[in-house]
Amino acid sequence: MAERTNDTRERLVATTADLLREHGYAGTGLKAIVAAGEATIGSLYHHFPGGKEDLAEAALRTSGAGYQLLVEAIIDDAPDVATGIRQSFPAAAQVLEASGYADACPIATVALEVASTNERLRRATGEIFEGWLEALASRLRAAGLGERAARDAALVYLSALEGAFVVCRATRSTEAMAAAGAWVADAVDAALAEAR
Amino acid sequence: MAERTNDTRERLVATTADLLREHGYAGTGLKAIVAAGEATIGSLYHHFPGGKEDLAEAALRTSGAGYQLLVEAIIDDAPDVATGIRQSFPAAAQVLEASGYADACPIATVALEVASTNERLRRATGEIFEGWLEALASRLRAAGLGERAARDAALVYLSALEGAFVVCRATRSTEAMAAAGAWVADAVDAALAEAR
Repeated sequence: MAERTNDTRERLVATTADLLREHGYAGTGLKAIVAAGEATIGSLYHHFPGGKEDLAEAALRTSGAGYQLLVEAIIDDAPDVATGIRQSFPAAAQVLEASGYADACPIATVALEVASTNERLRRATGEIFEGWLEALASRLRAAGLGERAARDAALVYLSALEGAFVVCRATRSTEAMAAAGAWVADAVDAALAEAR
Repeated sequence: MAERTNDTRERLVATTADLLREHGYAGTGLKAIVAAGEATIGSLYHHFPGGKEDLAEAALRTSGAGYQLLVEAIIDDAPDVATGIRQSFPAAAQVLEASGYADACPIATVALEVASTNERLRRATGEIFEGWLEALASRLRAAGLGERAARDAALVYLSALEGAFVVCRATRSTEAMAAAGAWVADAVDAALAEAR
């Protein structure tokens, strides 16, 4: 019974993450969440007493942690951090193409939408990004970059990747992801060579 | 009378652009547009028979053209294109800070929201970005870059700027804009030096 309850909770969170990624926060309704998650409004409020906002925060934090693990795995499985950074852009391009440009970053969509109107969700998106930045910066420090250079490189990486998602979705092309990936990876290579 | 009619149309377009930038497409309702634009639902449908979608497309294209002129002015007023690129990031950071992180790019917010659900608005955001890319690429070609290098540099510029808007809004800091601006400008400097 407890297991089934957790199943429902997890299904609601996963469904909400998918809907946020494709439609954003305002475009995601409770009815659509319940229908896609094969749940009832009653069970939704049982697990998330605060309704849509509670559920959206849980979905953002769960996806955020998932994406962080994914990027960490790509980088940690690569021979070195610069190669990992270089490989993560074509990996993102592949996800975009395979999903018909539907699957991008749910954090970014919600961040742009609610940044000035919902402080709780704005804070959640900011904390998720900070987690990603520190995961990348710690690997760049281990590879030899100083504190400031590692932080800057992580900020450039995240900005270029998130912006490339925006441009690729709008233009239905992975061209921006390829260009951004090559430039960021070259710049990281150069910064690491200089630090050596 | 014709003038007043045009005033209403322009006011509706400007109001919609502001609302899209702060709340996104799904979060912008006709009631809010009419209230903020000091118009009536009747006059809205007079000017925009297709309702919200018509109005949103007009607002995106008008803002898109406005931002293009702004970036062109920053670059054309600078001593050279690389300096203009370098200066455009702090200019964007200033707008973000001055507006309490509310004013970012309405094109990006809508692009992420509707990319998979509204082909007409998706196409509009793609065409606006293509206009910006060509405006920048033509200046980079004039400064000496080849066709492919100029296009790639423009894609990197746009991705970094749009992504920095996302990260800055989420984290309520202009740190990403500063880091992205410095890296992109350095890379453009290096590409131009190599082409000389």
